[in-house]
Amino acid sequence: MKQAIVVRADLGMGMGKVAAQASHASLRAFEYADDRAQRAWKQGGQKKIVLKANSERELYELNEEAKAAGLPSAVIEDAGHTQVEPGTPTALAIGPAPEADVDAITGDLSLF
Amino acid sequence: MKQAIVVRADLGMGMGKVAAQASHASLRAFEYADDRAQRAWKQGGQKKIVLKANSERELYELNEEAKAAGLPSAVIEDAGHTQVEPGTPTALAIGPAPEADVDAITGDLSLF
Repeated sequence: MKQAIVVRADLGMGMGKVAAQASHASLRAFEYADDRAQRAWKQGGQKKIVLKANSERELYELNEEAKAAGLPSAVIEDAGHTQVEPGTPTALAIGPAPEADVDAITGDLSLF
Repeated sequence: MKQAIVVRADLGMGMGKVAAQASHASLRAFEYADDRAQRAWKQGGQKKIVLKANSERELYELNEEAKAAGLPSAVIEDAGHTQVEPGTPTALAIGPAPEADVDAITGDLSLF
C-alpha cells in the first residue's frame, strides 16, 4: 500500500508551504480511503512518496485518472492566505491504495 | 483549532523528504486527537503551520511539553530508506488543539 502526494512545482512555494499543502492532501485522501486500506497502509508504515506536477491542469488530470480508477484522491485548493492566490490548486494525494495502482497513474512523475 | 508541524532543519533533508515527514507527523497526531477536536479542526479548514527545530533534543522536548499539556502529539522516526539514518527523529506534530495551547509551546519557533 502506498500514497502518492503530488505537489505543484510551478508555483514557487517555499518549503514550509509545500509541506503544509502535502500534509493537507495526505490527510484528505486518507479519509477517502476505506477502513481496510487505511489499516493496511498504517501497518505497512504509511509509505508515501512526494512527487512533482508542473501545472494546475496536470494536477486535475491526475485526480481524474485516480477517480476513474476508483482510488481515493483529493486535490487541495489553497485558502490563499500566503504565497498563492485564494483557490489555487496546490497539491493532490492519491491513496492509500495498492502500489501498482498508484504507480500506474503517477509512475512518470519526478520526485519533488 | 490549529496543528503545528515541527520539522528538523539540521538534517539537510530535501523538500520532498520534509513534505513526507511532515505529512506523516500530521496524520499521526491527528489520530491522537479526540473526535471533537478532529471535527472542529476540519471544519475550520485544517489550519496548520510548519515550523523549524534544530536538533533531536528540541523535537523531543517540544513533544514532552505537548504531552504534559495534554495535547495530541507525535514524533516521527524515519525508517531511514533515504537521506537519514534509520530511527532518526525527523518531525513532530502537535494538535489539532486550541490555537493558544499550541502557540504556548511552539510560539517561539521560526517558520520552516
